[in-house]
Amino acid sequence: MTSFKKYCITGKFKLSSIDPAATPFLKGDEEAQRQELETLAVRLDDLQNKLHAEGRRKLLLVLQGLDTSGKDGTIRWVFSRTSPLGVRVKAFKVPSEDERAHDFLWRCHAVVPSAGELAIWNRSHYEDVLVPVVEGLIDKAGARRRYAQINDFERLLTETGTVVIKCMLHISKEEQRKRLQARIDEPDKRWKFQMDDLAVRKKWADYEEAYEKALSATSTDYAPWHVVPADSKSHRNLMVAHLIVKTLENMKLTLPAASPAVSHLVVQ
Amino acid sequence: MTSFKKYCITGKFKLSSIDPAATPFLKGDEEAQRQELETLAVRLDDLQNKLHAEGRRKLLLVLQGLDTSGKDGTIRWVFSRTSPLGVRVKAFKVPSEDERAHDFLWRCHAVVPSAGELAIWNRSHYEDVLVPVVEGLIDKAGARRRYAQINDFERLLTETGTVVIKCMLHISKEEQRKRLQARIDEPDKRWKFQMDDLAVRKKWADYEEAYEKALSATSTDYAPWHVVPADSKSHRNLMVAHLIVKTLENMKLTLPAASPAVSHLVVQ
Repeated sequence: MTSFKKYCITGKFKLSSIDPAATPFLKGDEEAQRQELETLAVRLDDLQNKLHAEGRRKLLLVLQGLDTSGKDGTIRWVFSRTSPLGVRVKAFKVPSEDERAHDFLWRCHAVVPSAGELAIWNRSHYEDVLVPVVEGLIDKAGARRRYAQINDFERLLTETGTVVIKCMLHISKEEQRKRLQARIDEPDKRWKFQMDDLAVRKKWADYEEAYEKALSATSTDYAPWHVVPADSKSHRNLMVAHLIVKTLENMKLTLPAASPAVSHLVVQ
Repeated sequence: MTSFKKYCITGKFKLSSIDPAATPFLKGDEEAQRQELETLAVRLDDLQNKLHAEGRRKLLLVLQGLDTSGKDGTIRWVFSRTSPLGVRVKAFKVPSEDERAHDFLWRCHAVVPSAGELAIWNRSHYEDVLVPVVEGLIDKAGARRRYAQINDFERLLTETGTVVIKCMLHISKEEQRKRLQARIDEPDKRWKFQMDDLAVRKKWADYEEAYEKALSATSTDYAPWHVVPADSKSHRNLMVAHLIVKTLENMKLTLPAASPAVSHLVVQ
């Protein structure tokens, strides 16, 4: 398998150093890619069952990316063979009044995975160091404080049995243009379009910079960031699927042993 | 399609009047049944997308049934084509100390589906009129009070845009014996087995009676109960899938119209 190393952030990095159109994890024709994703999805289902059966550790997948980068699609296709029982998706929206009245990690901590659970965050606590930075709501010192708070929070999670996978879905500005235009042009997709998407798009360069800074500051040994080239949807799905499967395999999950007394029981 | 009428509870009923081994919704050979479930699962995915797009109404599926009746399996197979983004599963366990310190509907109300959501409850508020009745923790008057509180609660939900589907997965005592024995005999399933399952099994007749009473008292026009013959897993899945698809189709979901201004936008 292709190595993840190039796409795993260590220290300072430039988003421009990673081509959003790259497809290092794509092999063969479309049918072969479809088959490979299906195989990974089935494997992931099996591993999730083991995670649940073991009932001890937790997995948290954090998905970040600009509008149309494919967060929803990734969840749909990578987890296409996992029972809805086995994964819990949390989509973080603009904070509510109640959420704003608390520290920015409060609403996240409330929904971390529990023992045996696999949780997916569609957007996350990272929105709270991306949006405020771009909008000028916090200064550099404020941003640095939040990066440190995030690192502390993620250290707590990993030290208490949670494996954290963080992926930034990386698309080009041109690819976003096409996808937004498709939402407008295709009647079945139009309900997804929001005028606000265009306002955010205008701040493309600011968001790229905010992502660079946040990812550089929060890609740690215990919770590293991966940048996923995502102009190709097939590539995005395959790379994320490979990453999760590899991570779960590294956890060496095993079914809990039953007591010897149980194995000879006869049900009346 | 077969009619649901016989399996929809109205007034007093006897669980023994419904054969758990019946298969009214099964047609053709195994391959045909597999195909039919696949078609329904794809249709359900499409309808769930519309429910989400409409963003106005909600769907709540309540699944009840004794141990091994197939609640997990139903969720896995009926929703095998739905994105994990689209469904939210809540498994109700033995109430925690904090939950017991509140009224029994408190923890349920907290997780009802919001606008556009499809929520599945794996066990539910009904556990709180089944277990206490069987264990003698509440008397007849106490049980009647809870039935009425449940009906009031479900009226609130339906009057505020939630469609409630309630299914009791109905298996025979002999089928449960086989399934529990399989959990013991098959090493890969053994972790699912709990000694407590056998203790509950000894109260089979008490639970049947508690179910009869609870279902009779809470099968309302606005939130009726369906008893699903569930000795056959294929039948159980097909019947529940048909019921949900029919319910969503009856909701006449439509994609929200975009403003004319949007349809001519060109993204820069």
